[in-house]
Amino acid sequence: MSWTLARQDLLDLAYGAALLGSGGGGDPYIGRLMVERAMDQGRTVTVLGLDEVPDDGLVISTAMMGAPTVMIEKLPAGTEGGRALQALEDHLGEKAVAIIPMECGGLNSMLPLVVAAEAGIPVIDADGMGRAFPELQMETFHVFGVSGSPLAIANEHGDVTVVIARDNWAMEWLARGICVRMGGAAMIAEYSMYGAVAKNVSIPGTLGLGIEIGRAARQARREHGDLLENLGGALASISYRGPRLLFEGKVEDVFRETTGGFVKGRTQIRAHGTNQVLKVAFQNENLIAELDGEILAVVPDLICVLAAETAEPITTEGLRYGQRVQVISITPPEIMRSTAALEVFGPRAFGFDVDYEPSCGA
Amino acid sequence: MSWTLARQDLLDLAYGAALLGSGGGGDPYIGRLMVERAMDQGRTVTVLGLDEVPDDGLVISTAMMGAPTVMIEKLPAGTEGGRALQALEDHLGEKAVAIIPMECGGLNSMLPLVVAAEAGIPVIDADGMGRAFPELQMETFHVFGVSGSPLAIANEHGDVTVVIARDNWAMEWLARGICVRMGGAAMIAEYSMYGAVAKNVSIPGTLGLGIEIGRAARQARREHGDLLENLGGALASISYRGPRLLFEGKVEDVFRETTGGFVKGRTQIRAHGTNQVLKVAFQNENLIAELDGEILAVVPDLICVLAAETAEPITTEGLRYGQRVQVISITPPEIMRSTAALEVFGPRAFGFDVDYEPSCGA
Repeated sequence: MSWTLARQDLLDLAYGAALLGSGGGGDPYIGRLMVERAMDQGRTVTVLGLDEVPDDGLVISTAMMGAPTVMIEKLPAGTEGGRALQALEDHLGEKAVAIIPMECGGLNSMLPLVVAAEAGIPVIDADGMGRAFPELQMETFHVFGVSGSPLAIANEHGDVTVVIARDNWAMEWLARGICVRMGGAAMIAEYSMYGAVAKNVSIPGTLGLGIEIGRAARQARREHGDLLENLGGALASISYRGPRLLFEGKVEDVFRETTGGFVKGRTQIRAHGTNQVLKVAFQNENLIAELDGEILAVVPDLICVLAAETAEPITTEGLRYGQRVQVISITPPEIMRSTAALEVFGPRAFGFDVDYEPSCGA
Repeated sequence: MSWTLARQDLLDLAYGAALLGSGGGGDPYIGRLMVERAMDQGRTVTVLGLDEVPDDGLVISTAMMGAPTVMIEKLPAGTEGGRALQALEDHLGEKAVAIIPMECGGLNSMLPLVVAAEAGIPVIDADGMGRAFPELQMETFHVFGVSGSPLAIANEHGDVTVVIARDNWAMEWLARGICVRMGGAAMIAEYSMYGAVAKNVSIPGTLGLGIEIGRAARQARREHGDLLENLGGALASISYRGPRLLFEGKVEDVFRETTGGFVKGRTQIRAHGTNQVLKVAFQNENLIAELDGEILAVVPDLICVLAAETAEPITTEGLRYGQRVQVISITPPEIMRSTAALEVFGPRAFGFDVDYEPSCGA
């Protein structure tokens, strides 16, 4: 059954999306404001279960691409997503019946809702990453052989570009170059496919999961309950495992560089009153957490840094010296841990010469 | 009357195109081989006078964009131009009846002939630069208000991108970024317009001029005549003035950098047995020639460096220490010297804070 997103759902999603963003995907805050504005203008966000999508209906994935550090300063005009969608529909000569989020993390949990509401079509409760990832071929859609291009990319000035690439790596390479020329952040529409395909290549229930995570966190706060335990219940509902508490401490160093359409860097977190230092490397998203040479968690596991006082997720562009934090990890569903999936977004896809081990149980 | 290009025309055009390239546009050599291959395969290059183009027929401009230094090493596969043309036609939903060269200089005099021959349509004896220029908004088409985009850009791997930009500067900016990601050189199709428009915004007769220049140079060699005088006759046929001999000497320094999809630099030429040094700055094309602080010639005037022994034009990527050279200038027709034209490709468009003065008479 399709359902209508309520304002409280949106607040809960903002929390859940920040957590699933694994440090990346951009801060959901500005995205939430955009959805609220669409609601204020009388638009409705209708959510459709993955199994409800018509087999012969065209589905298009939308997202913001670029460096989260840029998105803080270069706010979307709000029209880019619709323009990217329309450019892709024009190119294909066919209208989408529903929008599927590219990733269920960060800002990109929110922006597809805006695009869908403005186009008057539903958004599907599923996505192609099960979290946030930095590159466009790092999607389950790609793992299962769907072509990401033609891709449309639009900026706030009315420029739009349609990329038809030989493969999804070339698509990422070309679109990233355009994104950089567009100022480091731009809206895309990509991975057009029919409903019958989408059902086999997507991670179902991740929009609902984001809301459930937010709800569980809210409940834990209200009832002074155990946050991690509450989150665990929500995550288990669609086969995520964890969270596991990896480390607690104080941010004592952050190195961060906005380069080539990404934010890349690393942070060091020192345990209170000890010499133990956790090192976390990131490319938009947190990728690997190492303690004295031991890898505590690595992609595709989610690594999330939470403010110790408030349990609010801290994005990689929000990391600052002196923050007191908890670092947790989450192991995603099996569809994201297959050999084919690990080739695309496992440790070696990011240049870490280590094998993937789930951080949250076997 | 339309006419068919002969093999001797092609040899003459190779010389004329190199001269009109004003140091840029890429070496015509590889382009000539591509046209010859098309001819070997039984294809015909049909040349159409600008006034013969049907008013309601769609005309599309094609060219290679990028840094000439790259084009030496990254040879075209030969299919890029056709693919760019087709992508633009598909986007527009209409077929071109003729190809118009973007620029009549260098490699870009030849490549439109290949695209036209393979598409089985004529090439128009006209262009949008009257020489070669480095940037896509530096076209008479743009001066007269034609939108350059939608533009299609294709590489040798089968990737193609369609750019729809708010204006022609944004088109240049985005297409240049894509060109860089495609390795620094790629084929484009742009400035689609109807014949009725093309007649008012193009420089007529420049393909024929290239051939005439080559013919005049050949005649001067055969008859041991005066090259510059012979060239002057050819140039005058469509209202170019000159050439004027600016300087003779030896190349004593070349600084050259391939950056941002261009080759930028400067060369110094020392007169034989004196301390006089001519400085020539270039961005793909030669832009300004200065002798002891006095500007001898500046864009849009053509500045050409010729090998002293052979009178062969030397492209900016071909400049080497020790070459004995003649430097000549040519003043283009009035359509390229209007206030509106100088704003787009006069000295200040390249950052030189000087007024334009024709170097070849008032």
